[in-house]
Amino acid sequence: MSVIYNKVALIGLGLIAGSISLAARQAGAASRISGTSRSAKTRSAARDLKLVDEVVDNAAAAVRNADLVVLCVPVGAMGKVMAEIKPHLKPGAVVTDVGSVKQEVIEQVSPHLPDNVHFIPGHPLAGTEHSGPYSGFAELFENRWWLLTPLPDTDPDELSRLRRFIRALGANVEDMEPAHHDLVLAVTSHTPHLIAYTMVGVADHLKRVTESEVIKYSAAGFRDFTRIAASDPTMWRDVFLTNKDAVLDILGRFTEELFMLQRAIRMGDGEQLHDYFTRTRAIRRGIIEAGQDTAAPDFGRGAKPTGKPANDGV
Amino acid sequence: MSVIYNKVALIGLGLIAGSISLAARQAGAASRISGTSRSAKTRSAARDLKLVDEVVDNAAAAVRNADLVVLCVPVGAMGKVMAEIKPHLKPGAVVTDVGSVKQEVIEQVSPHLPDNVHFIPGHPLAGTEHSGPYSGFAELFENRWWLLTPLPDTDPDELSRLRRFIRALGANVEDMEPAHHDLVLAVTSHTPHLIAYTMVGVADHLKRVTESEVIKYSAAGFRDFTRIAASDPTMWRDVFLTNKDAVLDILGRFTEELFMLQRAIRMGDGEQLHDYFTRTRAIRRGIIEAGQDTAAPDFGRGAKPTGKPANDGV
Repeated sequence: MSVIYNKVALIGLGLIAGSISLAARQAGAASRISGTSRSAKTRSAARDLKLVDEVVDNAAAAVRNADLVVLCVPVGAMGKVMAEIKPHLKPGAVVTDVGSVKQEVIEQVSPHLPDNVHFIPGHPLAGTEHSGPYSGFAELFENRWWLLTPLPDTDPDELSRLRRFIRALGANVEDMEPAHHDLVLAVTSHTPHLIAYTMVGVADHLKRVTESEVIKYSAAGFRDFTRIAASDPTMWRDVFLTNKDAVLDILGRFTEELFMLQRAIRMGDGEQLHDYFTRTRAIRRGIIEAGQDTAAPDFGRGAKPTGKPANDGV
Repeated sequence: MSVIYNKVALIGLGLIAGSISLAARQAGAASRISGTSRSAKTRSAARDLKLVDEVVDNAAAAVRNADLVVLCVPVGAMGKVMAEIKPHLKPGAVVTDVGSVKQEVIEQVSPHLPDNVHFIPGHPLAGTEHSGPYSGFAELFENRWWLLTPLPDTDPDELSRLRRFIRALGANVEDMEPAHHDLVLAVTSHTPHLIAYTMVGVADHLKRVTESEVIKYSAAGFRDFTRIAASDPTMWRDVFLTNKDAVLDILGRFTEELFMLQRAIRMGDGEQLHDYFTRTRAIRRGIIEAGQDTAAPDFGRGAKPTGKPANDGV
């Protein structure tokens, strides 16, 4: 693999930044990777791990002479970081970000953008419930989608160069309109996270069912929610505050639908429940066929089925 | 391992029955295992797989001379099956079940119980999103909980014998009051499943966000919901119809809590969101410490973190 960017600067050294660095190093996609974090502890951990070639003390130093700058901070911090690095950006540099919300990042970043710098917003649909410098790994982006939401005046050559870099990390790239991105993600990610946080919170509040029992007997569904609800609180706070409209829209639809099923339970309407559950089962098949999850039962958590795995009774 | 029951009869040949048979065979806990299913296709598949020692055509034939009868059918079918096998049960036999709701099963089964037969209701907290005869595997119960809800007149010797059999399958046994069981499971399993079904249904209905996009970009949270929402529709219909009160109670709490978070999003109350998400993260740690899930990020779905996995930024 040939070098795509000479110097890459990572602002933030968490799960995504660390994984970008490790994957880019493995692919030989950058000559030198510089990184920084606001937290001295994170910078020190990144140095110990040799997560990047060079850990520097501030964003200004990191972006100096960088050909690609990747903003890997929570959505709410993007504007502030951009204002900070603005005077230090190399003319012709590309700035991208990895935020989970795109319209808000564009609004925050655009006012601080020098004329001779290209901004191409992005969002890798990859992650785990872990965060921080220890959580990154080179394979995080393999076969995952990385959405770009280029602006009307985005330079096509720089766009295709960024796409090549992202593909070198192992991801599949697709373009999307920023507003559409925010709606799709509200459905596939933001609302599911809020719901998981809520369900875990309900369990936590219940006095009659002690916490230890909830934890002890969590295998039957609840533990999957706790995994999602273990995601980084700052990142997710910012997601909900900045993708408010789409999340409130989807939450409204969710509540309507939940009330309909709740009513079916109350009225004893088994046919409605059975029909609903049969339809949702088909969506799972679609996800497995699209290669976006394992077909192994229980995510392969120790499950070893005999014979062909069948999703239906035979 | 010595034989605990001479003949074991499994009524139903799905995921749980198949796994019981394979685990019991591996442990040498039964001399002979007989099984049946209402469906001729399931019986034929079980024969092909040699899932049990003997596949018979009806429940009456299966229970004949059996020392342990395990009812592995949906909760709504327990009473009917019990009425069917009643005249054919061996005096002194133990009948247990694997239903996800306990009060309803006790109500359905008790009227059909001969005086000389022991009924010990049970519920293995184990399963995958797959169902049917092909989905079972011997390791399903390893380190999982298997709850028993013995009745006031349960024979202590038969109870401890059943416990030994369940431990031979690899599970940990605990006793619980039937009503308490139904509430704990409403929190840890039933309500999470309903919520997952609902979220997947919302995604399915959305016209602006096409199904293919939802599937394509499902990695960021939604796909975990689809796994849960791929579970057996008949089993889950029966769970909601028969554990109605506890599920409606927990759903009411869930909705209150969701509305509070929804309001925080609408009002832009980032502090409330951040506090909430920080609390729920701690519960995940409890589940991992209790050995009820893997600490590997993303359930170990291909994730290989460098260094020590840290849940927090450092």
